Amino acid sequence: MTPMPHIYDCSVDPGWIDYNGHLRDAFYGLVFSHAVDALMDVIGLDAAHRAETGGTLYVVEDHRRYLSEVRAGAALRVETRVLGQDAKRVHLLQALTADRTGPAALSESLQLHVVQRPEPRVAPMPEAVAGRLALFAAPRSADCAGPISLRRSPSHA
Amino acid sequence: MTPMPHIYDCSVDPGWIDYNGHLRDAFYGLVFSHAVDALMDVIGLDAAHRAETGGTLYVVEDHRRYLSEVRAGAALRVETRVLGQDAKRVHLLQALTADRTGPAALSESLQLHVVQRPEPRVAPMPEAVAGRLALFAAPRSADCAGPISLRRSPSHA
Repeated sequence: MTPMPHIYDCSVDPGWIDYNGHLRDAFYGLVFSHAVDALMDVIGLDAAHRAETGGTLYVVEDHRRYLSEVRAGAALRVETRVLGQDAKRVHLLQALTADRTGPAALSESLQLHVVQRPEPRVAPMPEAVAGRLALFAAPRSADCAGPISLRRSPSHA
Repeated sequence: MTPMPHIYDCSVDPGWIDYNGHLRDAFYGLVFSHAVDALMDVIGLDAAHRAETGGTLYVVEDHRRYLSEVRAGAALRVETRVLGQDAKRVHLLQALTADRTGPAALSESLQLHVVQRPEPRVAPMPEAVAGRLALFAAPRSADCAGPISLRRSPSHA
């Protein structure tokens, strides 16, 4: 089976537009966050599983690049790929497109599998969850980010 | 004059808490974004300046590390420092604390000075703006992030 990205579609809420007349950075982040929720539903970390076991994901780090402005009314799509995983962690790459015209933003994140009860602790994922995550595996690519620095030209403007 | 961070205070909106019972990642991002707005007011890129000149900031990249959970009702503070600047760009480091108990998240971002009219284009900042930004200058520190990788231990869990 050829790995495919996970797909999440939504639209721009008018309240997400800022004084610059475009989607505020934090709401790109909210769309990426909702896309992770949708992925969790597919891999078996859905609300029922969370309620039953306390098992969930915590994001510990993310790195975003904003490639183009997004306007009110745009149709958004997030494609999520798994760049790496081990027993307790997963490294995601997400690409957001607006009206299907090339990526408007890229997000890398590192997610930890946490069991919240009795106290939150990092724990191995259920095997079935790890197996479903692997269906979205993709190799690292030029879309992966390095450290932020003024010495490096931004990838866009 | 000793450089000081820019300070932005706010509280957690109950709607920002997710199914894990803590502040959703994207709303850490919204707080960091509002702290940049507050900095813009102080350095002269306020609403009146934007309306008059079209000059504003666009974020092109950010990198966040989530160090601890934040609960409903917490008092948030963002300290913003300038790690570097040139004529058209500024590299920010922001530390978010909740109830003043050590950083709950760190954010680095790269901001471009853009004049939006007639079409958005990157342009040098007014000298007075650049001078006010320099009041918040700080050296790079261990709080600066490298690339995201499973080969590197997360700085927290």
